[in-house]
Amino acid sequence: MNAWFTEVQHPGLKLSCQLKDVLYACETKYQRLEVYDTVVFGRMLVLDGCIMTTDRDEFVYHEMLAHVPLMAHPEPRRVLVIGGGDGGIIREVLKHPSVELAHLVEIDEMVVEVSKKYFPKIAAGFSDPRAKVSIRDGIEYVKGISEQYDVILTDSTDPVGPAVGLFAEEFYVAAKKALRPGGIFCAQTESPMFNRDLLRRISQVFERVFTNRRTYFATVPTYPGGFWCFSMGTLGPSGDVADPKRATFETRYYTKDIHSASMVLPPFIEELVGKNV
Amino acid sequence: MNAWFTEVQHPGLKLSCQLKDVLYACETKYQRLEVYDTVVFGRMLVLDGCIMTTDRDEFVYHEMLAHVPLMAHPEPRRVLVIGGGDGGIIREVLKHPSVELAHLVEIDEMVVEVSKKYFPKIAAGFSDPRAKVSIRDGIEYVKGISEQYDVILTDSTDPVGPAVGLFAEEFYVAAKKALRPGGIFCAQTESPMFNRDLLRRISQVFERVFTNRRTYFATVPTYPGGFWCFSMGTLGPSGDVADPKRATFETRYYTKDIHSASMVLPPFIEELVGKNV
Repeated sequence: MNAWFTEVQHPGLKLSCQLKDVLYACETKYQRLEVYDTVVFGRMLVLDGCIMTTDRDEFVYHEMLAHVPLMAHPEPRRVLVIGGGDGGIIREVLKHPSVELAHLVEIDEMVVEVSKKYFPKIAAGFSDPRAKVSIRDGIEYVKGISEQYDVILTDSTDPVGPAVGLFAEEFYVAAKKALRPGGIFCAQTESPMFNRDLLRRISQVFERVFTNRRTYFATVPTYPGGFWCFSMGTLGPSGDVADPKRATFETRYYTKDIHSASMVLPPFIEELVGKNV
Repeated sequence: MNAWFTEVQHPGLKLSCQLKDVLYACETKYQRLEVYDTVVFGRMLVLDGCIMTTDRDEFVYHEMLAHVPLMAHPEPRRVLVIGGGDGGIIREVLKHPSVELAHLVEIDEMVVEVSKKYFPKIAAGFSDPRAKVSIRDGIEYVKGISEQYDVILTDSTDPVGPAVGLFAEEFYVAAKKALRPGGIFCAQTESPMFNRDLLRRISQVFERVFTNRRTYFATVPTYPGGFWCFSMGTLGPSGDVADPKRATFETRYYTKDIHSASMVLPPFIEELVGKNV
């Protein structure tokens, strides 16, 4: 099959993946959704033309967005995931025995349904009795609650369209209020090559809103430029691993040593977000 | 200008960069050479269809291939660079005050000439009196010498065509002999996503050939999959920073803390290359 999916990763930059098959394509209430089987990355979920996740490289992003904040918390029991309808974050969250509730709030039901069908390994967590799924606007949900969760994670699309509000100060203030004492908020915050103004702004906002903040990074091959940043704000915890003995779950990227190493920032990232203290 | 350069990064995977200008193109004695001005990465050097370096992201690769081995050596005086005709590695090597000789052995004179003309910032080191350039086959050169250099770096193209020999055990054995006592060899050794067999093999060879070995990694946005590995073999040094006080030069990626952090390997790399000890 000589068909290719091409993502415009940035104006003037395109990544193209050869297809083995087109498994599904539709317009949901919110976005264009496509599922491909690709030669290099296996199955691939695409929303509005952007690669969200692939079977081959999903482990880096999902492990790093889930385990860093959860391991920084002394005892995460109630965890909220905003977005992340593919289920990859929930799957990782549920590897922590202390977790009693992994609550996914996803605006687009089709993302959840399609992932269950076409990405069974990524969506594996949905069948866990501790997982709960709500189909609704995550921003509205967070604004309406207080002191409910130990950890809140946002696994969002890029800051265009429905996800814009997830990168606004107003949302971070609401997320802080929704955290229980000592809680931790963490979000994917884009590329240090291509979203430098955004990263600079978010770091300043986190500095104002949270008690402590850390930026860390990892490499996601299918994301623009490879380098990817995550921003964590806490109501007390330093951001370091709270209890190394808890790192007993199986992973392909995260370890407690990677936890610390991912917070050692190269100067070209530090000049945007400041020092991790 | 709606023209694009496309690299086939792996069968089934292509990266495309929009061009502002085609600055130079020729067939050298050894390879096809192109220089583009691109929208996203600035000027870009392409050999046989593969992106070698770009103005925007060259700092990661050049700093990491040069500074990790040089900082692991207690006092690097004589440094050999095989390949690296663009001059980026030499430029970084010359930031170390102890270096008396930065000897570049490049097979293709045109790479050096073109870089001096089109990549003045990358080629900046060539004008340093401690830099020496020899246009010849690096493999033959290394096989003919013994105990000449404190550090030997190979900055090669991928293991196809003229660079195949730079990934052979025979070459590593010759490089070991060419090192002075306590010397360090380091090479770029491709992607942990796409060259897994190569990395596994090189790690086993380094284990046999050298006293100590380390694998480390960084992210190079224009290289396939982003993740990039480097393999270091020593005749004594551990691979850790020998003297932190020497980290006074200016960089955008390397720091002495990044030095250590880059050797903390995710399990998916460790399962190929073994543990860094």
